[in-house]
Parts: sequence; structure tokens; C-alpha cells
Amino acid sequence: MRIALDAMGGDLGSELLIDGALSAIDKRPDLEVVLLGPEDLLKEQVAHRSGTGTGRLSIVHAPQTVSMHESPVDAVRKKKDSTIMVGFDLVKTGQADAMVSAGNSGATMAAAVRKLGRLKGIARPGIASLFPTLKDPVMLMDIGANVDCRSQHLFQFAIMASSCSALLLHKDRPTIGLLSIGEETGKGNILVKKTHALLQQSALNFIGNVEGRDVYRGEVDVIVCDGFVGNISLKISEGLAEAAMQMLKVEIMKSLRAKIGYFFIRKAFSSFKKRLDYAEYGGAPLLGINGVGIICHGSSSSVAICNAIAEAANMVENRVNDSIVKTLQQYTEQV
Amino acid sequence: MRIALDAMGGDLGSELLIDGALSAIDKRPDLEVVLLGPEDLLKEQVAHRSGTGTGRLSIVHAPQTVSMHESPVDAVRKKKDSTIMVGFDLVKTGQADAMVSAGNSGATMAAAVRKLGRLKGIARPGIASLFPTLKDPVMLMDIGANVDCRSQHLFQFAIMASSCSALLLHKDRPTIGLLSIGEETGKGNILVKKTHALLQQSALNFIGNVEGRDVYRGEVDVIVCDGFVGNISLKISEGLAEAAMQMLKVEIMKSLRAKIGYFFIRKAFSSFKKRLDYAEYGGAPLLGINGVGIICHGSSSSVAICNAIAEAANMVENRVNDSIVKTLQQYTEQV
Repeated sequence: MRIALDAMGGDLGSELLIDGALSAIDKRPDLEVVLLGPEDLLKEQVAHRSGTGTGRLSIVHAPQTVSMHESPVDAVRKKKDSTIMVGFDLVKTGQADAMVSAGNSGATMAAAVRKLGRLKGIARPGIASLFPTLKDPVMLMDIGANVDCRSQHLFQFAIMASSCSALLLHKDRPTIGLLSIGEETGKGNILVKKTHALLQQSALNFIGNVEGRDVYRGEVDVIVCDGFVGNISLKISEGLAEAAMQMLKVEIMKSLRAKIGYFFIRKAFSSFKKRLDYAEYGGAPLLGINGVGIICHGSSSSVAICNAIAEAANMVENRVNDSIVKTLQQYTEQV
Repeated sequence: MRIALDAMGGDLGSELLIDGALSAIDKRPDLEVVLLGPEDLLKEQVAHRSGTGTGRLSIVHAPQTVSMHESPVDAVRKKKDSTIMVGFDLVKTGQADAMVSAGNSGATMAAAVRKLGRLKGIARPGIASLFPTLKDPVMLMDIGANVDCRSQHLFQFAIMASSCSALLLHKDRPTIGLLSIGEETGKGNILVKKTHALLQQSALNFIGNVEGRDVYRGEVDVIVCDGFVGNISLKISEGLAEAAMQMLKVEIMKSLRAKIGYFFIRKAFSSFKKRLDYAEYGGAPLLGINGVGIICHGSSSSVAICNAIAEAANMVENRVNDSIVKTLQQYTEQV
């Protein structure tokens, strides 16, 4: 099992990414990680590390990097030797089994589609993401790859996310909800109403519309929406979680009594913070591409990178793409 | 100043609504509140109250109530004597200056449009709502009245919310952001791109796209989006705030040390909770109707009801609708 890792992606530097790779290697004896980036730089960063794990770390030279705000189209067109293009090329040629990047997600998606192509029958690949809930995490798709969608696209998101959730979260037949503004059939915009009809008449485990309030309750395994709504749902949640932490801090700092309380409570506090921190949740699988790719949050911790690598290996091993194609074939008349 | 209050709306019962009305009356010497609901019931509930404020409380009989999940179209068509229909009728005939309801928001909106009509030039009335942020609250519109919108509708939301924010939040020239999935011009779905162009070429104080993350930062006064996205943004925020409280509780209950800490910190905690609780924030103004109406959260506290009544009076007094119509006239060629 060989996973390619964009060692230049993310906001926190490549040392942390290499830490993540080594943790993943430690946990799985058959795992190798290929680091992508400028060879000299990476050699230097790996050189001062010890431990048996480093033997399963290799470097592939990729001199160019794509910055967080670069246009995906430009990045793919003009930077043929970027870490993400080289990484997906390794996957294409069989030199790696999957690719993980915490870099520019639009560019990573574009590079994946360019190098690997789409799965047979898939109109629009997309990005799925896990949201923390009161119970198990819920998988929401799409979180930003496709901003203007048709119902057929959302229908395919349901198939892809449900295959992936079955595998990653060990769900037998994941329940699927359609994100809308009311639970009743008939509530929602035109796109939702059309998608509802498609899902309703399918054999998928569709439970109907779910509302924004339901996302964090954890009562459904998969939630489907277009990439515009999904991205805003994700970002608004991240923003609120961040703001809530700051508001709580401000309230605590207002009194000595609360400050004393904080001294006792801070461990519980930090577990809570971790639980809400999106950067802690492995990565977001690119679904619908002919291969395995995972996008991580730009501010991922080494733990998150380690989880994402394990997740990628898991997706390869359990052939999530085969499951998607197989399910899709049952509905070819519908898409 | 006479405000009509739907005394049967909301999840928490009419006693609490009457408490809210009396608090509002206490705060403003020229204020009268008209309670709407079954006369006998309300008479009984008012009878056992004392204080000078009750003299400015009157009752108008409205025998029918609309439940939270009733179809707005049906409610307006079949229940002519419902609290909301009777309430907006009072506004129409000048017997009340504004209407406040914590009931079914779709039905309240529909009743307002049916009874009062739209403001001159407004294509789609909508609902604005205040979101708590790290700084001043931000006004987001639309939060659910219009699920499928055109750019002209969003442009008008910008005008309406900005007039309302100027008044309610005492902003001189409120900054306006367009909710999208990237700050750069050109990011977003088709609707956002078209709306961006309209706002850009207007004289409104448009600062460009804002992302989901920016909502809670409080760096912008008004955020514009369609009602589908706005409703999901609101509901997902409410859901996350609720879930976060529960997650924190679970973490605290895990250790004795944290439980002790909680004892000291709980006051700060409860202020924090209030700050995040949407039900605490007065009400959501219906904008674009030819009159003043406010929708409150179903689980509004009496404080929230009191705030909403004051907000309604404020909107009447400061002629927010005149300001909307005036601004709109400057752009009639655009809409």
C-alpha cells in the first residue's frame, strides 16, 4: 500500500505533514508514503528523523507548488510539475495507490479529474466531508466542487457518498437525507424537489428531506446537497465553532470566579474543542474520480494527516470505487 | 403606538407571550399591545394579572390558530379568522401599527402579503434575521421566504436589509456582503455571479462576496443570499449551537474535576449560551410588505418577545418602509 502525500500542501508546513506520514506508517506495517515536493528540501527534512518508519518514506521530486488561492484551472494548466499533478500522475501510472493533499482543494480536485478521469457513468465528481454530530459523524456531499447542479448530479452524490459511508463508517445500508428547508416532501427549491423524486423512486435507503438543524443530531448517515449549499454549510459551521470558542473565552474572562472554574474545566474544554474542530477529522474524499484522492483541511494537525492516509488506504483496500460503479449501474436509466 | 401580538403563536404558550407584552409596555409609556386569540381564554389569562401596564393591553377575538406545520397556502385560504389573518387585518385598517407573531413563519409571511400587499417595486418580500457575531449582529436576508430566486430578488434583499440594518442597528451606511463560496469576484454559482454584477454597479455599500466563515466574524453588516441558503445557514447554526452545548456537557460530566470547574464557571456559561441562542434575538422582520411585521422564533423567551415588540415599534416610528421605497426608486431601471 503506497500513498502519495503532498508535502507542500496546507498552512502549517511540511514538517507537520511528515509527522503525520510517519504516524500512519507506524500504525500499518505494509504502508509506504511517497512525499511530493522539492527533493532537496524534503531530503533535508527527512534526514534528521530517525526510527524504522523512515525506511518506508520516499520522495518524488515535484518542484512546483500551488498556493491556496490560485485558480484551479490555471494551476492544472500551467503547473504540470506541481505536487498535486505529480501525485495524481503516480496514481495514474500505478506507482501510488492514492493521493492525499492538504493544499488548494479546487486545484486538487481539478488535477484528479485531469489525470485520472471520472468513474464510468459519473457526471460530476464531488467532495464528501464528515461532520461531527452528537452520534456518529455524518457524510455530507458535495462540499464545494459543483456549485450549479442538476438533480441527476445530486442523485449520483447520494450513491457515491452512501458507498463511501458504508465503507468508512461501517454502515450496513447508510440512511440518506436530502438537505432542505423542511422535512415534508414538497419543501425545498426546484433542485431539491426534483432530486427528492429521483431518490424516492430508487432502491437507495432514502429517508426524505432533512433540515439544517438535523445535520448535527447524527440521526442520518449521509446528507446530499449541491456544492454551493454544502460549502456554505461547512464554512458557516467552522466559523460558528470558532466564534463560539471566542465568545465563551470572553465570558470566562469577565469574572475571577469563572477563571478559577476554567482552571478545573480546561481538560474537558480541550476535548470539546477537538470534537468540534473540523481540522481534526481526517480528510474529505474526492468521489467519482477513477482513483482514490483525499483533501485535508489546510490547517490539519499531524493526527488529521495520519487519519487521512489511513482513510485513503482503507478506500483503496475496500475498493470503494467498485462499489460506486456497481451501484450506479443499477440506475443507469435514471442518470 | 399599537402593536398586535399573536397570543397563540410559539411553542411555549400564551402566558409567556403576555409576559413579553407587559415588559414591552413597561418600557415604553406610549405603547399599547393588542392580544390576538380566543377572547375567553385571553381574558382569563389577563384577568389574574395586576399592574398599571394591563390597562394598555387589549384583546381582539381571533378564534382560529395556525399550527407550526400547517401549509401557509392552506392557512391563509381556509383560516380567515386566524390570529395572523386578524392581526394583519388590524394593520391594514390602521387599528394596529404592526404585527408580531412567534407562530408559523411561512403562514405569517403569506398572511402579511395577502392582507398588506407588497411595497411598491418589490418583487419578492422576504425575511431578514439577525445572527450573533463576535461584534455587532449581522443581518442576513432572505432566511426562507424565497427558495428559488433571481439576481434581481437578491439585489432587492440588499436594499431592504440595508435600510433595515441602518435603522435597527444604527449603522450609517451598512456594508453589504454577498454569501458565496469564495471571496474573489467570479466565485459562486450563477445566481451569485449575476447578483455580484448588479451590486457592484450600484451605489450600495457593497464589499463583495463573503464566505460562510465570515458570517460570525461580524466584519459586515448585511449578508444577502437566497432563502434556501439562508434558511439552511440559520438552521445549521442553531443545530450546531445546540449540539455544541450538549457535547460540552458530556465532556464536563466525564470527570469530577471538570464538574467542580463547572460549579464556578456556570454563570459565564449561561451568558455564553444566551449569546448564542437565536431565540433570544428579538425577531426577524418581514421586509417588502406594505406594513410592519415581525416573526419570532417558536421558542422565544418573554425577553425576546418584548424585544420584538420594541423592534416593531422602532420600525414603524422610523419609517423603514419609506426608506426602502426611496432607495429602490433610485434603481428602478435595474429591477
